[in-house]
Amino acid sequence: MKQISAEIVAVGTELLLGQISNTNGQWLSKRLADYGVNVYHHSVVGDNLDRVKQVFTTAAKRSDIVLVTGGLGPTEDDMTRDAFQEIYGVDVEVDEASLRKITSYFKNNNRNMTPNNRKQALVFKGSQVLPNEVGMAPGMAMETEDATWFFMPGVPREMKQIADEYAFPYIKNKYKLDRIIQSRMLRFVGIGESQLEHQLQSVIAEQTNPTIAPLASEGEVAVRLTASAPTSESAERMISEAEERILEQVGEYFYGYDEESLEAKAVEKLKSGGWTIAAAESLTGGMFTSRLVSVPGTSQVVAGSVVCYSPEVKRSVVKVLPETIDRFGTVSEQCAQEMAENIRSEFGTDIGISFTGVAGPGDSEGNPPGTVFIGVSQDQKATKVYQFKFNGNREAVRARTVKKGLELVYRLEKRHDHKA
Amino acid sequence: MKQISAEIVAVGTELLLGQISNTNGQWLSKRLADYGVNVYHHSVVGDNLDRVKQVFTTAAKRSDIVLVTGGLGPTEDDMTRDAFQEIYGVDVEVDEASLRKITSYFKNNNRNMTPNNRKQALVFKGSQVLPNEVGMAPGMAMETEDATWFFMPGVPREMKQIADEYAFPYIKNKYKLDRIIQSRMLRFVGIGESQLEHQLQSVIAEQTNPTIAPLASEGEVAVRLTASAPTSESAERMISEAEERILEQVGEYFYGYDEESLEAKAVEKLKSGGWTIAAAESLTGGMFTSRLVSVPGTSQVVAGSVVCYSPEVKRSVVKVLPETIDRFGTVSEQCAQEMAENIRSEFGTDIGISFTGVAGPGDSEGNPPGTVFIGVSQDQKATKVYQFKFNGNREAVRARTVKKGLELVYRLEKRHDHKA
Repeated sequence: MKQISAEIVAVGTELLLGQISNTNGQWLSKRLADYGVNVYHHSVVGDNLDRVKQVFTTAAKRSDIVLVTGGLGPTEDDMTRDAFQEIYGVDVEVDEASLRKITSYFKNNNRNMTPNNRKQALVFKGSQVLPNEVGMAPGMAMETEDATWFFMPGVPREMKQIADEYAFPYIKNKYKLDRIIQSRMLRFVGIGESQLEHQLQSVIAEQTNPTIAPLASEGEVAVRLTASAPTSESAERMISEAEERILEQVGEYFYGYDEESLEAKAVEKLKSGGWTIAAAESLTGGMFTSRLVSVPGTSQVVAGSVVCYSPEVKRSVVKVLPETIDRFGTVSEQCAQEMAENIRSEFGTDIGISFTGVAGPGDSEGNPPGTVFIGVSQDQKATKVYQFKFNGNREAVRARTVKKGLELVYRLEKRHDHKA
Repeated sequence: MKQISAEIVAVGTELLLGQISNTNGQWLSKRLADYGVNVYHHSVVGDNLDRVKQVFTTAAKRSDIVLVTGGLGPTEDDMTRDAFQEIYGVDVEVDEASLRKITSYFKNNNRNMTPNNRKQALVFKGSQVLPNEVGMAPGMAMETEDATWFFMPGVPREMKQIADEYAFPYIKNKYKLDRIIQSRMLRFVGIGESQLEHQLQSVIAEQTNPTIAPLASEGEVAVRLTASAPTSESAERMISEAEERILEQVGEYFYGYDEESLEAKAVEKLKSGGWTIAAAESLTGGMFTSRLVSVPGTSQVVAGSVVCYSPEVKRSVVKVLPETIDRFGTVSEQCAQEMAENIRSEFGTDIGISFTGVAGPGDSEGNPPGTVFIGVSQDQKATKVYQFKFNGNREAVRARTVKKGLELVYRLEKRHDHKA
C-alpha cells in the first residue's frame, strides 16, 4: 500500500502569539494515525495573505493531503479562502444551505446579520461542502492537481464534527485504505493510572498488535487498544482477545467503552434499577446533577436536587437538624447522612445522594481542603456515608467529588426485594 | 525598528502521532511576543533526517531567528544535530562541562552510562553552549549566514530554563530590543464576533499600534490590544486610549479585563449590590449554580438552588401552580416567571433566577430544541422573563443558557431605594 502523507496547516495569529495551543493539530494527527495515514508536517501561520499562500504552496508540494484549520471566519483577517483562491484561481460561490442556516441563526437570536456574516457561507466552486452541524462556516473538500485539500473551522468542536463525519470517510474512500485501524477504549474508575499500569505490566509487555495505551484523565483511567488488520472482523477479534486479558487483571474497575461516560452509565444503572434519584449538593454546587442531566432522556430518573451551599439552606430547605450542624458542623458524616436521607424523602425518590465538604481555598470549620463526605440513602437500605480526602485545587476537588458520586451511583446494588 | 521574524521548529514524531501537543511552541511564542519579536511560523517535523533538513532550510530562508526544540536526545532517532551538520557542514565537539554533568548523574544514580549518552554532550563547533541546569543535553546558540539558531531540548522544563536564562537575553542583546510589548484583553458578552467587528471597523482600520484582535469563544467575544512602546508607561497609555475608542462603540457589552470570568463579575455584582441569589434550574440542571460556586468566597451571596428537572418537582418543590403547567406547559414564560418568584421566596433571597427550556435532542411540549426562557425576580421590581432561541447541540444550548444567565445577573440594576 502506498504511503499517504498528510500535513496539517493551522491558520491564525492567535496561535503565533501563544494565546492558544494548536490542539487541533494533535487531535487530527491522532485520528489520522488511527486511519494509517502518515502525518509528516504541522504548520502554523498567521493571518497574513502572502505567508498563508506560501505555506499552502509548500504543503501541496510535499504532501498528498492538506488539512487546513481556521481562517474561515467572517472577519477581515480570515485569509484561508483568499489565499487558496489566489493560488489556484478558483472562484467562490454562496452555499445556500449554509447561508440559510446563518440567516436563521441571526433571526432566532434577534441579532443583526452584518454583510461579513455572508462570507462564512462562501465555498470554492467545485468543492464538496462538508456541513457544519454545530457552527456557521461549513467545511470543504477540494481536489487540486497536486493535493487533496480539506478546509475546516478552527473551533475544535466544529472541526472535530466535520473531520469525523466527512473528512476522514472521504480520505478512507479515496485512498482505499486497505488496512483497517480499529481501536477500542476501555474505561476504568476507582483505580489510579500507575496502579493500573502495574497490574497490566505483563499484558502490556507481550502486546504489540493491538497496542495498549493507558490514558489518565481527571479522576479516571482509560486504556486504548489499537489493532491494525486487513478486515474489521479480524481487528475486532484481536481487540476482544486483548480486552479479555486486561479485564482478567482489572475487570472490577471497568465501567464502559469508548465515548461511554460515567454519567451515562450511572443513568443506565438507575434506569435498569427502576430508580429515581435526587441530590443535595453543597461543595459541588449543582455540578453532580448537571452531569447527570447532560445525558439525554434522564427526566424519568433524575427528579432534581437542592444546591444547599449555605448552612441556612441546609437547615431550611434540606431540613438538616440545627443540633447536627451545631454539634458536628456541616462538613461531617452526620450532616451528609441527614442531607441524603432528607433529600430522598423531600423529593420522594428511591435514591438520595449528598455532597458536603471543603473545596478550598483554605480550611472550613477546621477541615482542610479536600475533605469530602458523600452520603447515599437508598430505599430499604442503611444510609452509607463515605469520607474522602481529595488532592488539588478548588476545581479539582469539586470535579473528583462529582466523579466519585457518579461512580457510587454506577456501583449501586439492587435491593434484596428485587433479587428475590 | 526593524521587524525581526522568528520561527519555532519542533522536532519529534510523537508530536505528529498526536501523543503530545506542541506546548513548547505556544510558550515560546508568548514569550517572544512579550519581547517584541514576531513569530511568523510554527513547524513540526518528525524524526526523519531528510524532512528535518528540508524544514530547517525553509526556516532559515524565511526567518531571522530559528528556535529548534527537541531531537537532541541520546537515541538513534534524534536527528537535530545530524540535519544541521549536513546542511551547514559544521563539526561537533564534546562540551566537557556537560559531559562531566552527565557522567556524574549516572554515577550518582548508580546507573550504567551507555555510549550514546555521550551524544547528549555534543555541541556544534563555534556555537555558544547554553547550559541545561535541569537536564542533560545543553542548548546551543549558533550564527549562520542566513539565520540565528537556538537549539533546545524538547522537555518543557529544560527548554524553558534555557530559553529564559540564555536564549531570550541573547536575542534581546543581539537585536538591541528596546521596546516593551504589552497587551490587555477586553471581554464582551451579548454581542457576536462579527457584530463587534462591524461596529469597530473604523477603529480597527485606523489602529496599528496598539493592534486590535477580536477573539471569539463559546458565547462571548474578547478583543486583545497589543501595544509596542519604549516604556511600560507609554504602552499602558496607548492601550488605554484605544480602549476608550473601543468602549465608545461597544461599551454596553463590556464586562471585564484579561482573565476575569463572567461568573466572577456576576458574583462581584451581587456582592456590590448586597444581594443574595437562588436559582431554579430545569434544562441547565445545576450548571448555572455550579458556575457561580466555582468562584471562591461565594457563600455569602449564593444561597443555593433547586434543580427541578421533572415537572413534578417544579410543582412539589418550586410550587409552580398545576394550572400554569397544564395551560402553558413547563417551557413557557409563565412557568419561568413562577419559578423565579417562588425560588426567591422559598430561599428568602433578593434575587431569584429561573431556567426552563428545551436542550434537545428533539422537541419538548411542541417546542424545538434551543427554546429557552430565563426569569429574573428581584426584590421590589417586576419579574422579567427573557426568551431565547439558541443553536447547537444539547451541550451547546445548556452552555449558552448558563452564559446568558450569568450575563443577566451581571447586568442587574440597583434597586431604586439604593439609588436614593
